[in-house]
Amino acid sequence: MDLFRRHENNPIITVNDLPMPAIAVYNPGVAQVGDEIVLLLRVELADGRSSLYVARSKDGVNNWVIDPNPLLAPGDPDSPIADYEEVGCEDPRITYLADYGEWFIAYVAVSDAGPAVALARTNDFRYAERIGIVLPPPNKDAALFPRRINGKWFMLHRPMIGRIEHIWLADSVDLIHWGHPQIVLRERGGTWWDGERVGAGAVPIETPEGWLVIYHGVKEVAHVPNYRLGLALLDLENPQKLIARCRYPVLSPQADYERIGNGLNIVFTCGALVRGDEVWLYYGAADTCVGLAIAKLGDLLDAVRGGGA
Amino acid sequence: MDLFRRHENNPIITVNDLPMPAIAVYNPGVAQVGDEIVLLLRVELADGRSSLYVARSKDGVNNWVIDPNPLLAPGDPDSPIADYEEVGCEDPRITYLADYGEWFIAYVAVSDAGPAVALARTNDFRYAERIGIVLPPPNKDAALFPRRINGKWFMLHRPMIGRIEHIWLADSVDLIHWGHPQIVLRERGGTWWDGERVGAGAVPIETPEGWLVIYHGVKEVAHVPNYRLGLALLDLENPQKLIARCRYPVLSPQADYERIGNGLNIVFTCGALVRGDEVWLYYGAADTCVGLAIAKLGDLLDAVRGGGA
Repeated sequence: MDLFRRHENNPIITVNDLPMPAIAVYNPGVAQVGDEIVLLLRVELADGRSSLYVARSKDGVNNWVIDPNPLLAPGDPDSPIADYEEVGCEDPRITYLADYGEWFIAYVAVSDAGPAVALARTNDFRYAERIGIVLPPPNKDAALFPRRINGKWFMLHRPMIGRIEHIWLADSVDLIHWGHPQIVLRERGGTWWDGERVGAGAVPIETPEGWLVIYHGVKEVAHVPNYRLGLALLDLENPQKLIARCRYPVLSPQADYERIGNGLNIVFTCGALVRGDEVWLYYGAADTCVGLAIAKLGDLLDAVRGGGA
Repeated sequence: MDLFRRHENNPIITVNDLPMPAIAVYNPGVAQVGDEIVLLLRVELADGRSSLYVARSKDGVNNWVIDPNPLLAPGDPDSPIADYEEVGCEDPRITYLADYGEWFIAYVAVSDAGPAVALARTNDFRYAERIGIVLPPPNKDAALFPRRINGKWFMLHRPMIGRIEHIWLADSVDLIHWGHPQIVLRERGGTWWDGERVGAGAVPIETPEGWLVIYHGVKEVAHVPNYRLGLALLDLENPQKLIARCRYPVLSPQADYERIGNGLNIVFTCGALVRGDEVWLYYGAADTCVGLAIAKLGDLLDAVRGGGA
C-alpha cells in the first residue's frame, strides 16, 4: 500500500475550477506564503501551450482562488527569453531562498529549440522576474535546493538523452552560471518501476537524516509509461552522495483520476510542503488534474532508510 | 568552387600512418606549439571507442610523429570523470588561453549517460589535466573563444535536440560554471545545405571584422547526411550578435576520400590555424582520415561579409 494517503477531496483542482476554459491543469509547484498555500498551476490552453497560474487557499485543500492572469506564460511581451518559451512554460518547482527573501521558480521553457531549464523569482506571486535560461536543452525537471551547501547553490536537473535518463546535480555561486554536472540518481534499468526514466519531483526537503528527494520513475507497460513516485536521500552537506533509496514507490497511480485522463497512469509531483509532522504532496494526475496526498515525514524517512539503494 | 583548396598531399594522415592498428583517424584539434604544429587526433580503435592522440610536424603537412600513448582516453585510471567518458573521448577543439599560458581542450565525453562537453588543459601536450564535464548531455561541438570578452569567457556549443540543432553560446567567469545559454547561429531549415543541423567547427578566429566561425552544416540526401563547412561572423565585443553568414559552403565533400570512407560525404573540422595571410584548416574526411585545406583569410572575410545572413 502506498505510504502517501490521498486526500478525500481529490482531485482538489480540475479544469472546472478554473476561471477560463482549459484542456488540463496539473503539475503544480507549491509554496507556503504567509498564511496561504500557493499553487503555481500548469494550465494547458486550447493551443496546447502551458502557462503558470497562481492559486491560493487558506487550508491547502479547499476554496482555491485562482488568478485570471498567468504569472508566467509564453508570449509575455516583456520576457527576455520569449524565443525560448514560445511553446510553453511548464512544470514549476518553487524554492524559497531565505538568503534572497524570495521564491525562485525553476520551470521548463519550451520552444522549437527544445525544453530548457529556466529560473524566475518573485516575492509575492503577483509578478515574477525571469532570470533566464540556466541550462541548455534538452533538460527539465529542475529543482533548486533551499540553501547554500558549502557556499554553493545546488540544483537537480534531468538531461534528456533518449533511452537513458538519470537525475543530475549542478552547482552555482550566482544561480546563473552552473557547473559540475553529475549524475546523482540513476534510473534503475531493466524491469524496475523506475527502470526506464527518473526525474526530480518535489523540491528536496531538508531533514536531519539528509535531503529527502521525492522523484518520479517511469516503467513502460504495453507502450503506456507508468509514472510513480519514489524516495531517495542525499547527504546533507554533500548532496552528490546518495545515502539511501527506497525500493518501492510511495505513490502509484491507482485512483481513477490518476489512471484515466488526457494521459494514463501518471502521478507526477513538482512540490511538497512539510506541515507539522506531515508531508503534503501536491501532484498532477494523468496530466489532467491536481491531487493532494499526505504522509508522515517519519514514515517516509523510515521507508527510504530501510529500502537500501 | 570551394574557397578552401585541398593540399596536394591529402589525405595527410590515415590509419596507415598510426603506430597502432585503428579503425579510423579523424576530426583533429590543432595547435601551434613552438615551431611545431600539433594535431590532437581522434583515433577510433577496434572497440569503437575513440581516444585522442598527439601528432607533431614541423611543416604541418609531412613527417608527423605520433605519440604511441593517448593524451586523453576512456579508461584512464586517474580520470576524475571516468564514468562520463567510458565510451570515448571525441572531437577535440584546442584553444590557447594566453591568460593561463595553457591550451584548453574542449572535447566530447561519451558514456551511456550521453555525449557531454568536457574540458582539459595542458601546457605541453604530453600530459593533460581534466577540468571535468562543463555542460550536461546531450551536447557536443564545443569551442572556447581564445580571450575574455567584457571580462567573460565564451564557448560555442551544440545541444542535441533531435530534429532541430542550432549553435549556442554560453559564458563563464571561471571556465567551470557556464550560464546564459543562447542560440547564436540557427540551422537554416528547409532544403539549405545547412538546413538540417549546424555545429561549431574550428575554434573562432579573431579578425578585425569579427569572430570568424567555420561551422559545419548538414543536409540529408537520400538518407545520407552531407556535411559541409560554412562561415559566420560574430561581433568582436558582443559574440551573441551574428554579423554575417555566408550563403554558400566553403568546403564540400568532393574528393574521393571525403565522399567515400567509413562514413560518406563528410568534411568536419575541429580546428584551423592562421598562418600569415592564410587559414590552414584541418578536417576529418568521411570519418576516416585527416585532410588539410587552405584559404586566404581575406577571401573568407570577403565571402562571409558578402554573403548576407
